[in-house]
Amino acid sequence: MAESEFDATAAEVEEVIRNRRSVHDYSDETVADETLRGVFDLARYTPSGYNLQPWEFVVLRSDGDREALAECAHGQEHVVDAPVGVIVLGNTDPAAHADRVFDDWLAKGYLSDEETRDALVEQVREWRDRSEDENRLWTTRSTALAAMTVMYAARSKGLSTCPMEGFDPEAVRERFEIPDRFEPVMLLTMGYPAEGADDREGPRKFRRPVDEIVHVGGFDDSE
Amino acid sequence: MAESEFDATAAEVEEVIRNRRSVHDYSDETVADETLRGVFDLARYTPSGYNLQPWEFVVLRSDGDREALAECAHGQEHVVDAPVGVIVLGNTDPAAHADRVFDDWLAKGYLSDEETRDALVEQVREWRDRSEDENRLWTTRSTALAAMTVMYAARSKGLSTCPMEGFDPEAVRERFEIPDRFEPVMLLTMGYPAEGADDREGPRKFRRPVDEIVHVGGFDDSE
Repeated sequence: MAESEFDATAAEVEEVIRNRRSVHDYSDETVADETLRGVFDLARYTPSGYNLQPWEFVVLRSDGDREALAECAHGQEHVVDAPVGVIVLGNTDPAAHADRVFDDWLAKGYLSDEETRDALVEQVREWRDRSEDENRLWTTRSTALAAMTVMYAARSKGLSTCPMEGFDPEAVRERFEIPDRFEPVMLLTMGYPAEGADDREGPRKFRRPVDEIVHVGGFDDSE
Repeated sequence: MAESEFDATAAEVEEVIRNRRSVHDYSDETVADETLRGVFDLARYTPSGYNLQPWEFVVLRSDGDREALAECAHGQEHVVDAPVGVIVLGNTDPAAHADRVFDDWLAKGYLSDEETRDALVEQVREWRDRSEDENRLWTTRSTALAAMTVMYAARSKGLSTCPMEGFDPEAVRERFEIPDRFEPVMLLTMGYPAEGADDREGPRKFRRPVDEIVHVGGFDDSE
Protein backbone atom coordinates (compact mmCIF):
# COMPACT_ATOMS: atom_id res chain seq x y z
CA MET A 1 0.00 0.00 0.00
CA ALA A 2 2.96 2.36 0.18
CA GLU A 3 2.75 2.86 -3.59
CA SER A 4 -0.98 3.25 -3.21
CA GLU A 5 -3.50 4.13 -5.87
CA PHE A 6 -4.44 6.96 -3.54
CA ASP A 7 -1.06 8.67 -3.77
CA ALA A 8 -1.99 10.63 -6.87
CA THR A 9 -4.69 12.43 -4.95
CA ALA A 10 -2.57 13.45 -1.98
CA ALA A 11 -1.38 16.81 -3.26
CA GLU A 12 -4.79 17.97 -4.47
CA VAL A 13 -6.59 17.05 -1.28
CA GLU A 14 -3.88 18.64 0.84
CA GLU A 15 -4.25 21.80 -1.24
CA VAL A 16 -7.98 21.97 -0.57
CA ILE A 17 -7.61 21.29 3.16
CA ARG A 18 -4.67 23.65 3.59
CA ASN A 19 -5.98 26.51 1.45
CA ARG A 20 -9.64 26.50 2.40
CA ARG A 21 -10.35 29.75 4.17
CA SER A 22 -13.53 31.24 5.60
CA VAL A 23 -14.62 33.89 3.13
CA HIS A 24 -16.74 36.97 3.84
CA ASP A 25 -16.43 38.71 0.44
CA TYR A 26 -18.28 37.08 -2.42
CA SER A 27 -18.49 37.94 -6.12
CA ASP A 28 -21.85 38.50 -7.83
CA GLU A 29 -21.44 35.35 -9.88
CA THR A 30 -24.44 33.05 -9.64
CA VAL A 31 -23.95 29.51 -8.40
CA ALA A 32 -25.51 27.09 -10.88
CA ASP A 33 -28.17 24.75 -9.51
CA GLU A 34 -26.17 21.82 -10.80
CA THR A 35 -23.00 22.91 -8.98
CA LEU A 36 -24.92 23.30 -5.74
CA ARG A 37 -26.57 19.93 -6.18
CA GLY A 38 -23.12 18.41 -6.74
CA VAL A 39 -21.93 19.82 -3.41
CA PHE A 40 -24.78 18.25 -1.45
CA ASP A 41 -24.54 15.04 -3.43
CA LEU A 42 -21.00 14.66 -2.04
CA ALA A 43 -22.17 15.49 1.51
CA ARG A 44 -24.19 12.26 1.41
CA TYR A 45 -20.98 10.19 1.59
CA THR A 46 -20.11 11.48 5.06
CA PRO A 47 -19.84 8.71 7.66
CA SER A 48 -22.25 8.56 10.61
CA GLY A 49 -22.74 6.21 13.56
CA TYR A 50 -24.77 3.19 12.37
CA ASN A 51 -25.06 5.06 9.04
CA LEU A 52 -28.04 6.98 10.48
CA GLN A 53 -27.33 10.18 8.45
CA PRO A 54 -29.17 12.75 10.59
CA TRP A 55 -28.18 15.76 8.44
CA GLU A 56 -30.44 18.01 6.37
CA PHE A 57 -29.74 21.35 4.71
CA VAL A 58 -31.99 24.34 4.09
CA VAL A 59 -30.59 26.18 1.07
CA LEU A 60 -31.51 29.87 0.80
CA ARG A 61 -31.01 31.83 -2.42
CA SER A 62 -33.62 34.61 -2.62
CA ASP A 63 -32.76 38.10 -1.37
CA GLY A 64 -35.58 37.98 1.15
CA ASP A 65 -34.48 34.66 2.60
CA ARG A 66 -30.85 35.71 2.88
CA GLU A 67 -31.79 39.01 4.50
CA ALA A 68 -33.92 37.12 7.00
CA LEU A 69 -31.05 34.69 7.66
CA ALA A 70 -28.66 37.62 8.24
CA GLU A 71 -31.08 39.03 10.82
CA CYS A 72 -31.04 35.65 12.60
CA ALA A 73 -27.21 35.85 12.51
CA HIS A 74 -26.85 39.16 14.35
CA GLY A 75 -26.88 41.12 11.08
CA GLN A 76 -23.66 39.67 9.67
CA GLU A 77 -23.41 41.32 6.24
CA HIS A 78 -21.73 38.50 4.38
CA VAL A 79 -24.88 36.43 4.90
CA VAL A 80 -26.67 38.84 2.53
CA ASP A 81 -23.69 39.26 0.20
CA ALA A 82 -23.18 35.54 -0.38
CA PRO A 83 -25.46 34.18 -3.11
CA VAL A 84 -26.22 31.07 -1.05
CA GLY A 85 -27.02 30.64 2.63
CA VAL A 86 -27.27 27.21 4.24
CA ILE A 87 -28.89 26.18 7.51
CA VAL A 88 -27.24 22.93 8.60
CA LEU A 89 -29.74 20.87 10.57
CA GLY A 90 -29.34 17.72 12.60
CA ASN A 91 -32.30 15.43 13.24
CA THR A 92 -32.43 14.74 16.99
CA ASP A 93 -34.42 11.54 16.40
CA PRO A 94 -31.78 8.81 16.06
CA ALA A 95 -34.34 6.37 14.64
CA ALA A 96 -35.69 8.66 11.90
CA HIS A 97 -34.11 6.55 9.15
CA ALA A 98 -33.34 3.34 11.08
CA ASP A 99 -35.73 1.08 9.16
CA ARG A 100 -34.27 1.96 5.77
CA VAL A 101 -30.68 1.82 6.99
CA PHE A 102 -30.94 -1.63 8.54
CA ASP A 103 -33.09 -3.02 5.71
CA ASP A 104 -30.19 -1.99 3.47
CA TRP A 105 -27.65 -3.77 5.71
CA LEU A 106 -29.76 -6.91 5.61
CA ALA A 107 -30.26 -6.78 1.83
CA LYS A 108 -26.51 -6.35 1.24
CA GLY A 109 -25.47 -9.12 3.59
CA TYR A 110 -24.06 -6.94 6.37
CA LEU A 111 -26.59 -8.54 8.73
CA SER A 112 -27.25 -12.27 8.93
CA ASP A 113 -31.01 -12.28 9.47
CA GLU A 114 -34.16 -10.27 10.09
CA GLU A 115 -33.92 -10.81 13.83
CA THR A 116 -30.62 -8.97 14.01
CA ARG A 117 -32.07 -6.20 11.85
CA ASP A 118 -35.06 -5.83 14.15
CA ALA A 119 -32.84 -5.77 17.22
CA LEU A 120 -30.77 -2.94 15.75
CA VAL A 121 -33.86 -0.90 14.88
CA GLU A 122 -35.10 -1.46 18.43
CA GLN A 123 -31.75 -0.41 19.93
CA VAL A 124 -31.70 2.82 17.97
CA ARG A 125 -35.36 3.51 18.86
CA GLU A 126 -34.43 3.23 22.52
CA TRP A 127 -32.03 6.14 22.05
CA ARG A 128 -35.14 8.30 21.71
CA ASP A 129 -35.45 7.98 25.49
CA ARG A 130 -32.06 9.58 26.14
CA SER A 131 -32.08 13.17 27.39
CA GLU A 132 -32.71 15.93 24.88
CA ASP A 133 -29.16 17.20 25.49
CA GLU A 134 -27.72 13.77 24.72
CA ASN A 135 -29.56 13.55 21.42
CA ARG A 136 -28.59 17.13 20.48
CA LEU A 137 -24.99 16.11 21.09
CA TRP A 138 -25.46 12.92 19.09
CA THR A 139 -26.86 14.72 16.05
CA THR A 140 -24.33 17.56 16.24
CA ARG A 141 -21.48 15.04 16.08
CA SER A 142 -22.55 13.45 12.78
CA THR A 143 -24.03 16.60 11.27
CA ALA A 144 -20.82 18.58 11.79
CA LEU A 145 -18.95 15.84 9.89
CA ALA A 146 -21.36 16.45 6.99
CA ALA A 147 -20.90 20.23 7.26
CA MET A 148 -17.15 19.79 6.88
CA THR A 149 -17.71 17.63 3.82
CA VAL A 150 -19.94 20.37 2.35
CA MET A 151 -17.14 22.91 2.83
CA TYR A 152 -14.51 20.72 1.12
CA ALA A 153 -16.92 19.69 -1.64
CA ALA A 154 -17.73 23.36 -2.26
CA ARG A 155 -14.03 24.27 -2.31
CA SER A 156 -13.34 21.55 -4.85
CA LYS A 157 -15.87 23.27 -7.14
CA GLY A 158 -14.28 26.72 -6.74
CA LEU A 159 -16.80 27.86 -4.15
CA SER A 160 -15.87 29.40 -0.84
CA THR A 161 -17.80 29.06 2.39
CA CYS A 162 -17.92 30.55 5.86
CA PRO A 163 -19.26 28.51 8.79
CA MET A 164 -21.08 30.38 11.58
CA GLU A 165 -22.16 29.24 15.00
CA GLY A 166 -23.17 32.72 16.20
CA PHE A 167 -26.89 32.94 15.46
CA ASP A 168 -30.25 32.83 17.20
CA PRO A 169 -31.50 29.24 16.77
CA GLU A 170 -35.04 30.13 17.87
CA ALA A 171 -35.26 32.92 15.28
CA VAL A 172 -34.03 30.50 12.61
CA ARG A 173 -36.62 27.91 13.64
CA GLU A 174 -39.43 30.40 13.52
CA ARG A 175 -38.55 32.22 10.30
CA PHE A 176 -37.83 29.11 8.26
CA GLU A 177 -40.46 26.86 9.88
CA ILE A 178 -37.93 24.27 11.00
CA PRO A 179 -39.68 21.30 12.64
CA ASP A 180 -38.89 20.86 16.35
CA ARG A 181 -37.04 17.60 15.82
CA PHE A 182 -34.15 19.40 14.10
CA GLU A 183 -31.20 21.04 15.86
CA PRO A 184 -29.80 24.03 13.91
CA VAL A 185 -26.14 23.00 14.10
CA MET A 186 -24.50 25.80 12.14
CA LEU A 187 -24.99 28.21 9.25
CA LEU A 188 -22.84 28.44 6.14
CA THR A 189 -22.49 31.12 3.52
CA MET A 190 -21.41 29.93 0.07
CA GLY A 191 -20.43 31.54 -3.22
CA TYR A 192 -17.55 32.38 -5.51
CA PRO A 193 -15.01 34.52 -3.64
CA ALA A 194 -14.58 38.15 -4.68
CA GLU A 195 -11.27 39.16 -6.24
CA GLY A 196 -8.91 39.90 -3.36
CA ALA A 197 -11.16 38.18 -0.82
CA ASP A 198 -9.61 36.98 2.44
CA ASP A 199 -9.60 33.54 0.84
CA ARG A 200 -6.52 34.54 -1.15
CA GLU A 201 -5.13 37.68 0.43
CA GLY A 202 -4.45 38.66 4.01
CA PRO A 203 -2.27 36.73 6.47
CA ARG A 204 -3.48 33.34 7.65
CA LYS A 205 -4.74 33.24 11.18
CA PHE A 206 -2.82 31.39 13.88
CA ARG A 207 -3.19 27.65 14.14
CA ARG A 208 -2.17 25.72 17.26
CA PRO A 209 1.00 23.70 16.52
CA VAL A 210 0.75 19.98 15.87
CA ASP A 211 2.81 19.06 18.94
CA GLU A 212 0.29 20.86 21.11
CA ILE A 213 -2.80 19.13 19.72
CA VAL A 214 -1.38 15.59 19.46
CA HIS A 215 -0.65 13.47 22.54
CA VAL A 216 1.14 10.26 21.65
CA GLY A 217 0.32 7.41 24.06
CA GLY A 218 -1.83 9.57 26.37
CA PHE A 219 -1.62 12.69 28.45
CA ASP A 220 1.40 13.52 30.59
CA ASP A 221 0.79 14.07 34.25
CA SER A 222 1.96 17.61 33.73
CA GLU A 223 -0.82 18.46 31.25
CA MET B 1 -14.22 32.33 -11.17
CA ALA B 2 -15.92 29.76 -13.40
CA GLU B 3 -12.52 28.93 -14.89
CA SER B 4 -11.13 28.89 -11.42
CA GLU B 5 -7.67 27.90 -10.32
CA PHE B 6 -9.47 25.44 -8.06
CA ASP B 7 -11.00 23.49 -10.94
CA ALA B 8 -7.98 21.25 -11.33
CA THR B 9 -8.56 19.81 -7.87
CA ALA B 10 -12.25 19.00 -8.28
CA ALA B 11 -11.93 15.45 -9.51
CA GLU B 12 -9.35 14.40 -6.94
CA VAL B 13 -11.25 15.84 -3.99
CA GLU B 14 -14.50 14.32 -5.20
CA GLU B 15 -12.73 10.99 -5.46
CA VAL B 16 -11.58 11.16 -1.85
CA ILE B 17 -14.99 12.26 -0.54
CA ARG B 18 -16.92 9.76 -2.63
CA ASN B 19 -14.63 6.76 -2.12
CA ARG B 20 -13.74 7.16 1.54
CA ARG B 21 -15.22 4.21 3.39
CA SER B 22 -15.09 3.15 7.01
CA VAL B 23 -12.60 0.30 7.18
CA HIS B 24 -12.46 -2.49 9.75
CA ASP B 25 -9.73 -4.66 8.13
CA TYR B 26 -6.23 -3.27 8.23
CA SER B 27 -2.95 -4.55 6.84
CA ASP B 28 0.09 -5.07 9.06
CA GLU B 29 1.96 -2.24 7.39
CA THR B 30 3.31 0.30 9.86
CA VAL B 31 2.24 3.91 9.55
CA ALA B 32 5.35 6.10 9.50
CA ASP B 33 5.58 8.80 12.17
CA GLU B 34 5.97 11.39 9.46
CA THR B 35 2.80 10.29 7.64
CA LEU B 36 0.82 10.45 10.85
CA ARG B 37 2.23 13.85 11.69
CA GLY B 38 1.21 15.05 8.22
CA VAL B 39 -2.38 13.97 8.87
CA PHE B 40 -2.65 15.97 12.09
CA ASP B 41 -0.78 18.89 10.57
CA LEU B 42 -3.65 19.16 8.05
CA ALA B 43 -6.28 18.86 10.80
CA ARG B 44 -5.01 22.20 12.14
CA TYR B 45 -6.52 24.05 9.16
CA THR B 46 -10.08 23.11 10.13
CA PRO B 47 -12.29 26.16 10.75
CA SER B 48 -13.73 26.86 14.21
CA GLY B 49 -15.91 29.58 15.70
CA TYR B 50 -13.69 32.57 16.56
CA ASN B 51 -10.78 30.32 15.52
CA LEU B 52 -10.77 28.82 19.03
CA GLN B 53 -9.57 25.36 17.88
CA PRO B 54 -10.77 23.21 20.79
CA TRP B 55 -9.59 19.90 19.32
CA GLU B 56 -6.85 17.57 20.62
CA PHE B 57 -5.96 14.01 19.65
CA VAL B 58 -4.58 11.16 21.71
CA VAL B 59 -2.72 8.85 19.33
CA LEU B 60 -2.31 5.24 20.47
CA ARG B 61 0.11 2.87 18.80
CA SER B 62 1.32 0.29 21.34
CA ASP B 63 -0.43 -3.08 21.59
CA GLY B 64 -1.32 -2.43 25.23
CA ASP B 65 -2.87 0.94 24.50
CA ARG B 66 -4.90 -0.33 21.57
CA GLU B 67 -6.11 -3.33 23.55
CA ALA B 68 -7.18 -0.98 26.33
CA LEU B 69 -8.93 1.28 23.81
CA ALA B 70 -10.79 -1.73 22.33
CA GLU B 71 -11.99 -2.63 25.83
CA CYS B 72 -13.35 0.93 26.18
CA ALA B 73 -15.09 0.44 22.80
CA HIS B 74 -17.11 -2.64 23.75
CA GLY B 75 -14.36 -4.97 22.52
CA GLN B 76 -14.52 -3.96 18.83
CA GLU B 77 -11.76 -6.04 17.26
CA HIS B 78 -10.69 -3.59 14.58
CA VAL B 79 -9.52 -1.24 17.33
CA VAL B 80 -6.78 -3.77 18.13
CA ASP B 81 -6.16 -4.72 14.48
CA ALA B 82 -5.63 -1.14 13.30
CA PRO B 83 -2.03 0.05 13.87
CA VAL B 84 -3.27 3.43 15.11
CA GLY B 85 -6.10 4.37 17.45
CA VAL B 86 -7.14 7.98 17.98
CA ILE B 87 -9.18 9.51 20.79
CA VAL B 88 -10.68 12.74 19.43
CA LEU B 89 -11.08 15.22 22.29
CA GLY B 90 -12.82 18.57 22.48
CA ASN B 91 -11.83 21.13 25.08
CA THR B 92 -15.01 22.28 26.84
CA ASP B 93 -13.33 25.52 27.94
CA PRO B 94 -14.06 27.99 25.11
CA ALA B 95 -11.43 30.41 26.43
CA ALA B 96 -8.56 27.92 26.65
CA HIS B 97 -6.73 29.56 23.72
CA ALA B 98 -8.54 32.90 23.53
CA ASP B 99 -5.55 35.08 24.48
CA ARG B 100 -3.33 33.69 21.75
CA VAL B 101 -6.08 33.70 19.14
CA PHE B 102 -7.06 37.33 19.65
CA ASP B 103 -3.44 38.50 20.07
CA ASP B 104 -2.91 37.01 16.62
CA TRP B 105 -5.95 38.85 15.19
CA LEU B 106 -4.63 42.11 16.62
CA ALA B 107 -1.08 41.54 15.33
CA LYS B 108 -2.36 40.76 11.82
CA GLY B 109 -4.70 43.74 11.63
CA TYR B 110 -7.98 41.82 11.93
CA LEU B 111 -8.75 43.89 15.04
CA SER B 112 -8.33 47.65 15.28
CA ASP B 113 -7.05 48.00 18.83
CA GLU B 114 -6.25 46.32 22.13
CA GLU B 115 -9.61 47.29 23.58
CA THR B 116 -11.48 45.25 20.98
CA ARG B 117 -9.10 42.36 21.60
CA ASP B 118 -9.74 42.48 25.34
CA ALA B 119 -13.50 42.66 24.81
CA LEU B 120 -13.38 39.52 22.66
CA VAL B 121 -11.32 37.62 25.22
CA GLU B 122 -13.80 38.70 27.88
CA GLN B 123 -16.79 37.61 25.76
CA VAL B 124 -15.33 34.16 25.20
CA ARG B 125 -14.45 33.83 28.91
CA GLU B 126 -18.09 34.49 29.75
CA TRP B 127 -19.02 31.38 27.77
CA ARG B 128 -17.42 29.44 30.62
CA ASP B 129 -20.58 30.24 32.59
CA ARG B 130 -22.85 28.49 30.10
CA SER B 131 -24.21 25.10 31.13
CA GLU B 132 -21.92 22.11 30.87
CA ASP B 133 -24.22 20.66 28.19
CA GLU B 134 -23.97 23.84 26.13
CA ASN B 135 -20.17 23.79 26.22
CA ARG B 136 -20.08 20.08 25.38
CA LEU B 137 -22.24 20.88 22.35
CA TRP B 138 -20.01 23.83 21.46
CA THR B 139 -16.81 21.77 21.52
CA THR B 140 -18.39 18.79 19.72
CA ARG B 141 -19.40 21.05 16.83
CA SER B 142 -15.87 22.29 16.06
CA THR B 143 -14.09 19.10 17.06
CA ALA B 144 -16.20 16.97 14.71
CA LEU B 145 -15.19 19.30 11.86
CA ALA B 146 -11.56 18.53 12.72
CA ALA B 147 -12.29 14.79 12.91
CA MET B 148 -13.69 14.89 9.38
CA THR B 149 -10.56 16.69 8.21
CA VAL B 150 -8.43 13.97 9.82
CA MET B 151 -10.35 11.31 7.90
CA TYR B 152 -9.93 13.07 4.54
CA ALA B 153 -6.28 13.93 5.25
CA ALA B 154 -5.63 10.28 6.13
CA ARG B 155 -7.39 9.11 2.97
CA SER B 156 -5.26 11.43 0.86
CA LYS B 157 -2.20 9.63 2.25
CA GLY B 158 -3.54 6.15 1.45
CA LEU B 159 -4.73 5.54 5.01
CA SER B 160 -8.20 4.35 5.89
CA THR B 161 -10.09 5.22 9.04
CA CYS B 162 -13.22 4.18 10.92
CA PRO B 163 -15.01 6.65 13.19
CA MET B 164 -16.77 5.28 16.30
CA GLU B 165 -19.17 6.90 18.70
CA GLY B 166 -20.00 3.69 20.56
CA PHE B 167 -17.61 3.65 23.51
CA ASP B 168 -17.55 4.23 27.26
CA PRO B 169 -16.32 7.82 27.72
CA GLU B 170 -15.69 7.33 31.44
CA ALA B 171 -13.53 4.29 30.80
CA VAL B 172 -11.56 6.25 28.18
CA ARG B 173 -11.07 9.14 30.63
CA GLU B 174 -9.80 6.86 33.35
CA ARG B 175 -7.53 4.60 31.32
CA PHE B 176 -5.84 7.38 29.36
CA GLU B 177 -5.85 10.01 32.13
CA ILE B 178 -7.86 12.52 30.10
CA PRO B 179 -8.27 15.79 32.03
CA ASP B 180 -11.87 16.63 32.99
CA ARG B 181 -12.04 19.64 30.71
CA PHE B 182 -12.03 17.42 27.61
CA GLU B 183 -15.07 15.80 26.02
CA PRO B 184 -14.24 12.49 24.28
CA VAL B 185 -16.05 13.27 21.00
CA MET B 186 -15.29 10.13 19.02
CA LEU B 187 -12.71 7.42 18.40
CA LEU B 188 -10.99 6.65 15.12
CA THR B 189 -9.05 3.65 13.94
CA MET B 190 -6.44 4.33 11.25
CA GLY B 191 -4.11 2.29 9.08
CA TYR B 192 -3.52 0.95 5.60
CA PRO B 193 -6.51 -1.12 4.49
CA ALA B 194 -6.06 -4.88 4.07
CA GLU B 195 -6.31 -6.30 0.59
CA GLY B 196 -10.00 -6.84 -0.08
CA ALA B 197 -11.06 -4.69 2.85
CA ASP B 198 -14.56 -3.20 2.85
CA ASP B 199 -12.90 0.01 1.68
CA ARG B 200 -12.70 -1.45 -1.84
CA GLU B 201 -14.95 -4.46 -1.92
CA GLY B 202 -18.51 -5.07 -0.77
CA PRO B 203 -21.55 -3.03 -1.78
CA ARG B 204 -21.76 0.58 -0.61
CA LYS B 205 -24.27 1.21 2.10
CA PHE B 206 -27.43 3.21 1.43
CA ARG B 207 -27.21 6.98 1.41
CA ARG B 208 -30.28 9.21 1.69
CA PRO B 209 -30.97 10.88 -1.68
CA VAL B 210 -29.98 14.49 -2.20
CA ASP B 211 -33.60 15.63 -2.72
CA GLU B 212 -34.46 14.29 0.70
CA ILE B 213 -31.66 16.06 2.57
CA VAL B 214 -31.84 19.44 0.78
CA HIS B 215 -34.74 21.85 1.28
CA VAL B 216 -34.54 24.80 -1.06
CA GLY B 217 -36.07 27.96 0.40
CA GLY B 218 -37.22 26.30 3.62
CA PHE B 219 -39.40 23.44 4.78
CA ASP B 220 -42.75 22.64 3.21
CA ASP B 221 -45.74 22.61 5.47
CA SER B 222 -46.06 18.94 4.68
CA GLU B 223 -42.67 18.02 6.08
